[in-house]
Amino acid sequence: MAEFEGVYPAIITPMTRDGELNEAAFREVIEFNIEAGVHGFWVAGGTGESVLLEDHENNRIAEIAADQARGRIKNIMHVGAPNTRRAAAMAEHAARAGVDAICCVPPFFYRQPDQAIVEHYRIVAAASDLPFFVYNLPQSTGVEITPELMARIQDRVPQLRGLKHSAPIVHNVRAFSKMGLECFVGNCMMMLPALTIGATGCIDGPPNVAPELWVEIWRAYNDGDYARAEEAQDMASEVGIAVRQFGMHSTLKAVLSERLGIDCGDPRPPGLPLTPEQRAVLVADLERLGLTRRAAVASDD
Amino acid sequence: MAEFEGVYPAIITPMTRDGELNEAAFREVIEFNIEAGVHGFWVAGGTGESVLLEDHENNRIAEIAADQARGRIKNIMHVGAPNTRRAAAMAEHAARAGVDAICCVPPFFYRQPDQAIVEHYRIVAAASDLPFFVYNLPQSTGVEITPELMARIQDRVPQLRGLKHSAPIVHNVRAFSKMGLECFVGNCMMMLPALTIGATGCIDGPPNVAPELWVEIWRAYNDGDYARAEEAQDMASEVGIAVRQFGMHSTLKAVLSERLGIDCGDPRPPGLPLTPEQRAVLVADLERLGLTRRAAVASDD
Amino acid sequence: MAEFEGVYPAIITPMTRDGELNEAAFREVIEFNIEAGVHGFWVAGGTGESVLLEDHENNRIAEIAADQARGRIKNIMHVGAPNTRRAAAMAEHAARAGVDAICCVPPFFYRQPDQAIVEHYRIVAAASDLPFFVYNLPQSTGVEITPELMARIQDRVPQLRGLKHSAPIVHNVRAFSKMGLECFVGNCMMMLPALTIGATGCIDGPPNVAPELWVEIWRAYNDGDYARAEEAQDMASEVGIAVRQFGMHSTLKAVLSERLGIDCGDPRPPGLPLTPEQRAVLVADLERLGLTRRAAVASDD
Amino acid sequence: MAEFEGVYPAIITPMTRDGELNEAAFREVIEFNIEAGVHGFWVAGGTGESVLLEDHENNRIAEIAADQARGRIKNIMHVGAPNTRRAAAMAEHAARAGVDAICCVPPFFYRQPDQAIVEHYRIVAAASDLPFFVYNLPQSTGVEITPELMARIQDRVPQLRGLKHSAPIVHNVRAFSKMGLECFVGNCMMMLPALTIGATGCIDGPPNVAPELWVEIWRAYNDGDYARAEEAQDMASEVGIAVRQFGMHSTLKAVLSERLGIDCGDPRPPGLPLTPEQRAVLVADLERLGLTRRAAVASDD
Repeated sequence: MAEFEGVYPAIITPMTRDGELNEAAFREVIEFNIEAGVHGFWVAGGTGESVLLEDHENNRIAEIAADQARGRIKNIMHVGAPNTRRAAAMAEHAARAGVDAICCVPPFFYRQPDQAIVEHYRIVAAASDLPFFVYNLPQSTGVEITPELMARIQDRVPQLRGLKHSAPIVHNVRAFSKMGLECFVGNCMMMLPALTIGATGCIDGPPNVAPELWVEIWRAYNDGDYARAEEAQDMASEVGIAVRQFGMHSTLKAVLSERLGIDCGDPRPPGLPLTPEQRAVLVADLERLGLTRRAAVASDD
Repeated sequence: MAEFEGVYPAIITPMTRDGELNEAAFREVIEFNIEAGVHGFWVAGGTGESVLLEDHENNRIAEIAADQARGRIKNIMHVGAPNTRRAAAMAEHAARAGVDAICCVPPFFYRQPDQAIVEHYRIVAAASDLPFFVYNLPQSTGVEITPELMARIQDRVPQLRGLKHSAPIVHNVRAFSKMGLECFVGNCMMMLPALTIGATGCIDGPPNVAPELWVEIWRAYNDGDYARAEEAQDMASEVGIAVRQFGMHSTLKAVLSERLGIDCGDPRPPGLPLTPEQRAVLVADLERLGLTRRAAVASDD
Repeated sequence: MAEFEGVYPAIITPMTRDGELNEAAFREVIEFNIEAGVHGFWVAGGTGESVLLEDHENNRIAEIAADQARGRIKNIMHVGAPNTRRAAAMAEHAARAGVDAICCVPPFFYRQPDQAIVEHYRIVAAASDLPFFVYNLPQSTGVEITPELMARIQDRVPQLRGLKHSAPIVHNVRAFSKMGLECFVGNCMMMLPALTIGATGCIDGPPNVAPELWVEIWRAYNDGDYARAEEAQDMASEVGIAVRQFGMHSTLKAVLSERLGIDCGDPRPPGLPLTPEQRAVLVADLERLGLTRRAAVASDD
Repeated sequence: MAEFEGVYPAIITPMTRDGELNEAAFREVIEFNIEAGVHGFWVAGGTGESVLLEDHENNRIAEIAADQARGRIKNIMHVGAPNTRRAAAMAEHAARAGVDAICCVPPFFYRQPDQAIVEHYRIVAAASDLPFFVYNLPQSTGVEITPELMARIQDRVPQLRGLKHSAPIVHNVRAFSKMGLECFVGNCMMMLPALTIGATGCIDGPPNVAPELWVEIWRAYNDGDYARAEEAQDMASEVGIAVRQFGMHSTLKAVLSERLGIDCGDPRPPGLPLTPEQRAVLVADLERLGLTRRAAVASDD
């Protein structure tokens, strides 16, 4: 059994109306997900707007996530930054704050040679003794981590434990898994398919707003009940499409605001908020999909 | 249950030492696959070198495939050509020859607007009253058939039955399936994953040389024995990688020559034959993978 | 001075209302261009719909072009085909028909390794003893001929004389020119820019319908009158944009039909004809741009 | 005549052995370029490693550049950042520091819809009343500013003055110029070609290490001596290739260290320094190309 496995929602970063980190809402979103049975979080990743945040904000997020976890789930903290020094400093801080693992996109904006990518990872991973995950996200970084490049990273980075694989070539999940890596698929519509070829779980934004659906895939798969797993994936995919329809950050924040009854704010600019028309369409879709407000949970508090 | 479903190897076109169609070898390859339990063939497709063949050769291939089938399997005949007239003429001939369905890549070389692609498909499909399949192969054609474009095709092409989906975005299998299409996944390493999200089967080149492995995936999946299905996919993927290592056409032909003990020839130029060194590596790999010469079948002769 | 230099329109293939080669119109288009002062033609290339034509049609085009030239201009005949045998056979025929040079796209549809591309070119070029040009058109073929790959071709193809460079990286014109190649730029909006870094001329579709404009760029450039050359390029570019606005083949054919008063037909399907609305916009644009009907030539008829 | 025109080297950010901004070396590089006759600088852009720097470092760079200019040249200060707030704050600071114009890449890492890109530019430009330039660099940002998108920006950003066009489609220089924009070409091998279709000048890294060569192109072009301009471009291009051969930042810094006799340091990690072997090759190339140490230049003053 893998140490890191199952459903790891890529958690949003809720914000106040002033555009600052909303700590109370963040803790609520974490609780909502833990109650739904998730196994961990991908913290301050792509969905968490990390690249739009200041380093001190990312650091604070690591502290809150670690504090809120109380051993119930694992936090994999993202520390990607264009330069190595900043990424390493955030990794060091996150480890001290008590997260369970570190993850990092490759250097972006400037296209670096493979040797520089490997060296970047070596230094960032060495900033802590935590397990380390690569974030393979070529759509944002311009760098595809192929199995060949990953082998070079594996050679030089003893902390390497696995990756979030969000690149289009899904069949590489098998290759990464054969290399002994814990490979999370980064596309929530492909969780069950990826599990059948060796994925250790799923990390993506949509599970963050309807965690119960992906947890059900995981449970059905592990029960060996594949018909149920397929049904669960189908429902989850339907939701996955709906909760991305107007831009990932704005839609996910709006859905959580609706479901939790707590304002999670808007994306940090240049991200755009939803228009009233978009929000109306979204609310209707949530109702159609049965993603109602968390009544019972609210009463627990 | 879908009418077209299961394992449809994309069959090679064996050639003589003079580079002409080798009918005897072609019939042998068909038999070898039928004996292994395949459900049909994708005939004269990408693996079959159709675009390198003359139209009269493609026509002859349709005749042989139909004749050899004897109702045991279904043939989906590929008739793609850069111009509409040629594709439609081949479709008409194939229908007369007795194949079970027609398939076609979108127009290639010249990038056409969506309206022209739809019209191309309308005319080619209308050349027969057989079920019609789209071949979604952007790597070769430069055209990605998205679900949106497919909806326009579906609107105008009453014969449309399904597609071979060889584009990178595997999660679109679900979208095509929801549209009521029989969607074969075109990547043999993704057969089981695709089945879990609605695929009707798999069409690819490697199953043509080791059909038993993909047939086993299909059987295990339909038996509801997913652990066995995962094992079968894993073994099949291992083979799928090996039998493509030196270029698809040359490697697949060499593997079949080895396994069947019948010379299947080389790719048509500009395709390159294997070097002796490549062939030696390949033969060693086949042995390692247990892909031995067809003993039982040989005794039938 | 280069043997092949100046303005080489990529000539259309006029068709009858039945969609067959219109020889009379083809000869008229040739004459119209020769009278305007062009230096040669790129015959049955991308603009000429070669990949949509049967080989016997391409062969006939070579014969007409050679016959009509009467030593006044040079014909570079395109013989690209997916398979090597067909391309070589067309090259052989074209040489016998009397064209002045052969050109060829790399193998398309199937992605071939560099070695196969080089070998394809070696065989096609060896089918005649004419000067040979590569057609670098990655948008249609999926293959970019980089300077590095061209060096490998140059090594193995003694007939290699130059190329039509239609790939996006225009600064490679300099690299090809430094290799001793006659490099035509394949973007008519970049003729003057490319001349300043070593291009030998321009080959593209739009010059075929308004040859006088590109001939003027060439003359001004060679007169050393760069202010006039810049003005000519600016006017030519304006026209170049207009005559491509509704799809290259349909728009160019319609423009020539208007300017010559001879029906040049529609594109071969899947190419679409202009709608009446598109044709009306186009005619208005031609008037605005001063591309009037060929008065003097008309009086010849 | 354009207000911003001519040769605007994209200036490097020299660093100390500790990896901090080397102010003395930075002032030397500025002087070296001013003495060679450049018309301005693109400050803290791609070549200046801006995305690898802290905002306070970028701010300090703006101050030094403005201070050193003393009215002799114009500084266009780059303030691109993934989030709008940071970019706007740097723009405001740069304006107060005394630069002459602001420039900015579009939002990167997260793919934003056009409306968000336009709004980002509106806010960043509005942070000062200086002329504003867009930086069109799709290789790094994943966003191509097409003429259509630029028209939307022009509509909403009254400060918009022009752009650095580093996207592959060079013929868009004409389109941007027709829109009334001052369009600098961002490829130093294409300066002369771009001038002939309306470019206002050239911005790129290599001119920063051999400014005299690009200044000569500008002077020859403006003297109407095109033969000399072509020769100058050819020499400049030769140098442009050499000074990028081992990675832009490391090679340019090493060349300036050699030519000025002042250590300009290494790239900020993840950028890699040159190996001793690479440096030896580079020094030999500089000698071959006549890019000798600025001894004579110093004595000229």
